Amino acid sequence: MIRVGIVGAAGYTAGELLRILLLHPGAEVVFAQSSSHAGEPVWTAHEDLAGETDLRFCEEVIPSKVDVMFLCSGHGKSKGFVESLGDSYKGSIIDLSNDFRLKADAGDFIYGLPQVNLSKLYGAKHIANPGCFATAIELSLLPLAAKLPAEVHVTGITGSTGAGQKPSGTSHFSWRTSNLSVYKPFTHQHLGEVTEALVDEGFTGKVNFVPVRGDFARGIIVSTYFDSDLTEEQAVSAYRDFYSCDPFIRVVDFNPDLKMVVGTNRAILYVRKYGDKVHVISMIDNLLKGASGQAVENMNISFGLPRTEGLQFKATRF
Amino acid sequence: MIRVGIVGAAGYTAGELLRILLLHPGAEVVFAQSSSHAGEPVWTAHEDLAGETDLRFCEEVIPSKVDVMFLCSGHGKSKGFVESLGDSYKGSIIDLSNDFRLKADAGDFIYGLPQVNLSKLYGAKHIANPGCFATAIELSLLPLAAKLPAEVHVTGITGSTGAGQKPSGTSHFSWRTSNLSVYKPFTHQHLGEVTEALVDEGFTGKVNFVPVRGDFARGIIVSTYFDSDLTEEQAVSAYRDFYSCDPFIRVVDFNPDLKMVVGTNRAILYVRKYGDKVHVISMIDNLLKGASGQAVENMNISFGLPRTEGLQFKATRF
Amino acid sequence: MIRVGIVGAAGYTAGELLRILLLHPGAEVVFAQSSSHAGEPVWTAHEDLAGETDLRFCEEVIPSKVDVMFLCSGHGKSKGFVESLGDSYKGSIIDLSNDFRLKADAGDFIYGLPQVNLSKLYGAKHIANPGCFATAIELSLLPLAAKLPAEVHVTGITGSTGAGQKPSGTSHFSWRTSNLSVYKPFTHQHLGEVTEALVDEGFTGKVNFVPVRGDFARGIIVSTYFDSDLTEEQAVSAYRDFYSCDPFIRVVDFNPDLKMVVGTNRAILYVRKYGDKVHVISMIDNLLKGASGQAVENMNISFGLPRTEGLQFKATRF
Amino acid sequence: MIRVGIVGAAGYTAGELLRILLLHPGAEVVFAQSSSHAGEPVWTAHEDLAGETDLRFCEEVIPSKVDVMFLCSGHGKSKGFVESLGDSYKGSIIDLSNDFRLKADAGDFIYGLPQVNLSKLYGAKHIANPGCFATAIELSLLPLAAKLPAEVHVTGITGSTGAGQKPSGTSHFSWRTSNLSVYKPFTHQHLGEVTEALVDEGFTGKVNFVPVRGDFARGIIVSTYFDSDLTEEQAVSAYRDFYSCDPFIRVVDFNPDLKMVVGTNRAILYVRKYGDKVHVISMIDNLLKGASGQAVENMNISFGLPRTEGLQFKATRF
Repeated sequence: MIRVGIVGAAGYTAGELLRILLLHPGAEVVFAQSSSHAGEPVWTAHEDLAGETDLRFCEEVIPSKVDVMFLCSGHGKSKGFVESLGDSYKGSIIDLSNDFRLKADAGDFIYGLPQVNLSKLYGAKHIANPGCFATAIELSLLPLAAKLPAEVHVTGITGSTGAGQKPSGTSHFSWRTSNLSVYKPFTHQHLGEVTEALVDEGFTGKVNFVPVRGDFARGIIVSTYFDSDLTEEQAVSAYRDFYSCDPFIRVVDFNPDLKMVVGTNRAILYVRKYGDKVHVISMIDNLLKGASGQAVENMNISFGLPRTEGLQFKATRF
Repeated sequence: MIRVGIVGAAGYTAGELLRILLLHPGAEVVFAQSSSHAGEPVWTAHEDLAGETDLRFCEEVIPSKVDVMFLCSGHGKSKGFVESLGDSYKGSIIDLSNDFRLKADAGDFIYGLPQVNLSKLYGAKHIANPGCFATAIELSLLPLAAKLPAEVHVTGITGSTGAGQKPSGTSHFSWRTSNLSVYKPFTHQHLGEVTEALVDEGFTGKVNFVPVRGDFARGIIVSTYFDSDLTEEQAVSAYRDFYSCDPFIRVVDFNPDLKMVVGTNRAILYVRKYGDKVHVISMIDNLLKGASGQAVENMNISFGLPRTEGLQFKATRF
Repeated sequence: MIRVGIVGAAGYTAGELLRILLLHPGAEVVFAQSSSHAGEPVWTAHEDLAGETDLRFCEEVIPSKVDVMFLCSGHGKSKGFVESLGDSYKGSIIDLSNDFRLKADAGDFIYGLPQVNLSKLYGAKHIANPGCFATAIELSLLPLAAKLPAEVHVTGITGSTGAGQKPSGTSHFSWRTSNLSVYKPFTHQHLGEVTEALVDEGFTGKVNFVPVRGDFARGIIVSTYFDSDLTEEQAVSAYRDFYSCDPFIRVVDFNPDLKMVVGTNRAILYVRKYGDKVHVISMIDNLLKGASGQAVENMNISFGLPRTEGLQFKATRF
Repeated sequence: MIRVGIVGAAGYTAGELLRILLLHPGAEVVFAQSSSHAGEPVWTAHEDLAGETDLRFCEEVIPSKVDVMFLCSGHGKSKGFVESLGDSYKGSIIDLSNDFRLKADAGDFIYGLPQVNLSKLYGAKHIANPGCFATAIELSLLPLAAKLPAEVHVTGITGSTGAGQKPSGTSHFSWRTSNLSVYKPFTHQHLGEVTEALVDEGFTGKVNFVPVRGDFARGIIVSTYFDSDLTEEQAVSAYRDFYSCDPFIRVVDFNPDLKMVVGTNRAILYVRKYGDKVHVISMIDNLLKGASGQAVENMNISFGLPRTEGLQFKATRF
């Protein structure tokens, strides 16, 4: 039984980790640290867990009691925390922030995208869990990374949970319901890790990315296209081959919709050719495959468990 | 041309007032006061007004320049403001807070529900604009107020704009979308004005009211029932007669839905008998008939304009 | 391994059964019958199952191959089907329609609400799965059924999936989004089974029920109140005691919201006293605890499996 | 007073026409033709009009009684209807279908985009009202049409009302709520009119267009980008200059959101430069500026009324 600690356990991604790990047959949540909720039952932050667990948030991290810690405190807080741990902690760390994703920041952290780093993730002690948009975009481009032209064109639409639980103008229900807005076009903070992941696979071009805020809570849908002289059959085959052994990725033959992945750790890809363009639709649940689901998948891999252990959820669909 | 000032002009109800009054043929907005936005164009708070007006928020209220002031600063702030005005201001005041609605607080403020106080509102200088739930409930019960039994049963569902623009846990999009929750059952703050308005018309009973937060931005739907020995025909006639001269109230003969009133200053009522119960559905747009639309209607009445002046909006429907 | 057949397998409740049973450790779906989709992969109706199963819809029911059949063909179609089966089929039947719920229709079918019929459901061959609104209302009233006054007051709001997948005016997105409407007040078809279930427990009164269509896909929230001379403490205790052994029912101490149950087989209850009224909030996922989840729970019970087998889903929450 | 007839008056765009024209000071709706609803009050299809008008749907078109007919019967039905009218009808026709939009189909119909055809629309008898996506895309590209590179990249997201009121799988609420899907990438039927409109202004390239179905009822947001050696200041100036006299188009200086245009006849544009790309956000209400609002604007222009007559709606915002 893997003993798990969660640091910064009151936020969205930590809530998803708790929901997953409390039902995970090979893991046990030993502590859920939260400064803001210390001493309170975990259901005070994650209300649906009322009656499901007696776990309480604790004030202090207790490294010696766990085999792995998931860091959910938010961007910019993980690096200092890891440094403060020093050498005494012998367990694993899976960081959900962006602190260790870029090569310049990574140190010995492995970028936790199993589709490219599977062998490095076996036994890995330090894992940087990818960003949500980054995951969706990388999955949509990796199989052809070395064959992509100078520019690829990406638009992605994300649910509101991607922005976390801190209130803001664009997370106010009255504003966001039945509304849409573009944000950070060409400048989204995930472009760095996307580009690095693609370059590793041979990409030499540039990703044009326009993110959009959607009026739904969960999910990311990414529409990508690029010039290609592959036939449709060749393009589809490239995706099928690349993901043939992946337990969570489906390359489908019909036009999918976002709710096919909501509530699951799956990614769905749909590849077609229109004129001289290959068009790829890529969809994930931003809190699962785009965050906590992938984090547990990385735990499973690094600890030698089956990749799907505890991650086969009943899909929501509606 | 009625010269209008808006105090506390950066909030939702003030935004609706601006949208109405900038198109109102008989009124002119002279100032829009906001401490938080002083000096900025009004579109910095009400973005859709970009390009529609050059008006800027001002820091100071300038009573001498206006014929009427709408007070939108929020509950508990109007009473002090009115006192600070003293006797020098000779114009009118229409208050959108709950500071003057109850008889114990009202002083010379007239409760601004035209369906019962029309004659008092002609020429009125001080008007307390009713609450949104209060308006919907009162409209659903007034025609039979003197014939109601000891208890009436009311459930109301409100859109998120009813809670204003200040962020809170229950206004966060990720929480509220596809969600519902009951709040303040039997204890909602509008029960006082509801009861007073009904008692004036002969009611001697008690209103049981369960409010519900809905996952939509605009509108209130109220379902009300009570024991009655009236026939359905008598009950429907009572409502038709009571509202026969009202330019904004429709007593319909088919089961209505909320979006029939969204974007309008209308109220829709639907009255039927089931066994020994009369059941009434009452619907309004909480920001219009339930707030700013009714406030302008009160201005129209008190200044002798046609009641519908500037208030016949294209309905939204979808 | 329980061998399962699903009859009428292309609809919403059948889709949920498939999602549950494909992951259920003690059951195996042997056939999924659908006349409209015969021969096609099940993902043609339940798109998220693409890549999850090779199962195809079949034209014919093959009773001899299964231990239990779930009937999902819709109201009015189960009775004839069961008659056509004759005596040769020795397996179990769990019917999700309303054909066998009322005592007058039931024959040897057991009403499948485990909270009252648990002992009868052990080994039961014929089970009538309760309606969704019925489940939510019964759970909110059963603990005090014998102590309820002459009238109880119930308003319930349901998600759109409760109306099935056949298109109708009120299931059109453009109409339903951000909209609400009352339907069938005092006359909803579930009142019969609600009353029978309560009468069995000592109820002698009448249930006033106003159903409302909500603008969300999943979930039912029911607000119920009634006169009572119990103290709040007594009332809460009655609910806690009644459900103390139930693995899926939570009597919580804080005001809950609907999404706490969405995606789960749980029911959440919240009981408080206001003046002389006990008020109960009851919430379920209409497709799970209100349909397919409860159906599998009934299968588990009747076959002697742990009640929670295959039914502990990661909650959705957002 | 312009006498108006509406042909095919039971659909969404006809409903919007009625809502606009019943309040239009210079127009009078003489008949609303609908085969499916002949003889019934117009509120049987457009429920919010109950109590607002006594108009009934008629079976027959009566050309002699009107000065202008709006054709709302749907794509493919207008051409035959116009032919059947023959020469006896001397009034105007504004067609909301795609039957006369392309040059090959147009005959003497003028493409009703006032931003390019204003002078031709004065006094025009036959007007082809543009498509909704087409309007949003054309407005986003016209000012630089002659300076655009070989490829422009467009993603557009549309509300459900764009698909009309006929039920379909993708208009079912349970499916569409909190969902998204791409459709007709690179092949949308509006690409023809978009290209023709741009070519007229000097465009020689190709429009790559990916449409997305959004989970909201009203509005279109289009994100467009292209290589350009203009500076940001030059690009913004080009848009401001091109639309400087337009009463409905706002080129704003802050990142807008879709609900700024919902319920209005406005278009909002936001132009910025990122690296070597000009990025344009373009937003309209698909039923107003994208259909019925623009149709009335075309009526106003062709009959010599002020362009904004009857089209200055209170915005919805929330």
